[in-house]
Amino acid sequence: MLEIHTEIRETGPDRYATLIDGGWAIGSSLNGGYLQLPVVRAVLAAEGHPHPVAVTTDYLQAPHAGEAEIVVERLRTGKTIGTSRATLIQDGQPCLVSSVVTSTLDSNAPDVDLAPPIELPSPDQCTRIRSDVMPGTNLALMDHVDVRLAPEFANVVRGRPDGSMALRGWVRMVDGRDPDPLVCLLAADAFPPVTFTIGRYGWAPTVQLTTYLRVLPAPGWLRCELRGRVLANGWFDEDCTIRDSAGRLVAQSRQIARIPRVPTPSPTEN
Amino acid sequence: MLEIHTEIRETGPDRYATLIDGGWAIGSSLNGGYLQLPVVRAVLAAEGHPHPVAVTTDYLQAPHAGEAEIVVERLRTGKTIGTSRATLIQDGQPCLVSSVVTSTLDSNAPDVDLAPPIELPSPDQCTRIRSDVMPGTNLALMDHVDVRLAPEFANVVRGRPDGSMALRGWVRMVDGRDPDPLVCLLAADAFPPVTFTIGRYGWAPTVQLTTYLRVLPAPGWLRCELRGRVLANGWFDEDCTIRDSAGRLVAQSRQIARIPRVPTPSPTEN
Repeated sequence: MLEIHTEIRETGPDRYATLIDGGWAIGSSLNGGYLQLPVVRAVLAAEGHPHPVAVTTDYLQAPHAGEAEIVVERLRTGKTIGTSRATLIQDGQPCLVSSVVTSTLDSNAPDVDLAPPIELPSPDQCTRIRSDVMPGTNLALMDHVDVRLAPEFANVVRGRPDGSMALRGWVRMVDGRDPDPLVCLLAADAFPPVTFTIGRYGWAPTVQLTTYLRVLPAPGWLRCELRGRVLANGWFDEDCTIRDSAGRLVAQSRQIARIPRVPTPSPTEN
Repeated sequence: MLEIHTEIRETGPDRYATLIDGGWAIGSSLNGGYLQLPVVRAVLAAEGHPHPVAVTTDYLQAPHAGEAEIVVERLRTGKTIGTSRATLIQDGQPCLVSSVVTSTLDSNAPDVDLAPPIELPSPDQCTRIRSDVMPGTNLALMDHVDVRLAPEFANVVRGRPDGSMALRGWVRMVDGRDPDPLVCLLAADAFPPVTFTIGRYGWAPTVQLTTYLRVLPAPGWLRCELRGRVLANGWFDEDCTIRDSAGRLVAQSRQIARIPRVPTPSPTEN
C-alpha cells in the first residue's frame, strides 16, 4: 500500500503529480510522516541518487486527500551528494516544503554508534495502538502502521501521565512490507506526541521535522524511542531514535511542534 | 561586530544585499554558523516576527568574503508563526538555503526542562581556542567568538582522542555582546567537530544544520555541550545543547556532516 499511496507521476521537468490517500489520517489531519513520502520519492526520481540522507520538512497548511502537485528544485547535484527542495502544492497553495539531501547508503553496521540501546519487551508483550483506541477520533494511520507501545507507556498515553516526555515501542507496516528509508520516515512521526506523557493531550501540530537516515534497515520490526526535552513558549521538541531488528541505528529524527492550546480530555482506558 | 558583519540592506521586495566578512573563517572556509546570520536577519526583516524559532540550513557551496544577495520566499505569514525560505546567492549561485520558522520568544524559564545539566569548570579554568592554535591554519572565527573547552576536552582535540564524540565548553562574543538567538545560532557551530575526539581530524563539512531557539538567553556566558552519536556511510551527526548563565536551555542544534575523507595530522600540543 505504501508504494501505491505515495506513487508519483512525472508531468514535466522536475514536476510530479501524486494522489494523496485519505487513509493515513490521525483524526482530521493526514499524518506528516506519510505526506513526506511522495515528496521524497519525487526528489529521488528527479536526481537519481538512490537514498534520502536528511529530510527537513516545514508544514505550512494541512493538505486533504486527492490530487497534489510536487515541484522539485535541484540545488546541488553532485556525484556523491544531491540537495533539493520540493514543495507539495494543492489548490495552488504550498502545503509542505521539504529539503532533501540524497546520497547512497549501505546496510553495514555503523562505524561508531554511541546512542543507548532501546530496551523493549517483545512486540506481542506490547500494546498495539488501534485505529479506534481514542473514542470519537479515527486514527486511520494505525490500519497501515502497526505501532506497539511498551506496556508502561501504554498506560501513560491512556491518561496516567508520568512526566517523562518519553515513549518507546515497535513499528512495522501492517502489510508486512520490510522497512527502508521511507518506512523510517513514516515511523519517526507515527507515535502519539510525547506531550501525552505530561498530560497535555490533543493535536500537537508539527511545525518543522528533520529525519536523518543513517543505514539501510534489516527486515523486521523497528525499535523506536521518543524523547522530548523542553517545553517553552508554547513549543516542544521531540526526538525519535530508530534501530532495526539487527540493532543498528538506522534513523534519527527531531521535530519542533506546538503544544495544544486548549487542554482536551484524556483518552479513556479501554 | 556581529551587527555590522551581518548587516542587510533591502534592495527590493523580499530581496536584500549583505557584505560577507572574511574574518569569520575556519581555515579557508567561512563559518557556517556565521553565514546563517544575515539570512535569518533578512527573514525577520521581511516577515516582522521578532525571533527565529527553528532554522534549518542546507550548505550547497562555500561563499567567499564580499557582496552577496539574499532572496526571501515567504511561505506562511501567520499572526503567531511565520515560515520562510531564504537563499544566499553569490556570483549567481545559491550558496546556502535556510528554512526559518519565526515567532515571539520570551526569557522565562521553560515550563518543562528534562535535558541534563551541562557541568563545566569556570571559564577561567577552561582552555580558550585561539585563532592560531592549529599550525598552518588560521581559525579567525576565534577572534570574534571566545570558545573555551573544559580541560579534559582541550587534550582530546589536541591529539589524544578519547572516543567520546563529546565536547563541552563556554561561548561568548569577544566584544562582550550579550547573547541572543543570533549568538546562539553562532555558538551551535563554533566548536571543533566531535570527530576530533575519535582521531578524525580535518575539515568536516556540514551538509544540513538545524537549530531550535527556545528561550531568550540571559546576559553572560553560554554553556554548551556537543555530542555525536553515529558515524556511518561517511556521515556523522552532531548535537549541540546550549544553556544560558541562568541555567535555562536556550537552544538545541543538530547537524549532519561528512567525515574527512583523508586523515589529516593531529593538531600538535601547544
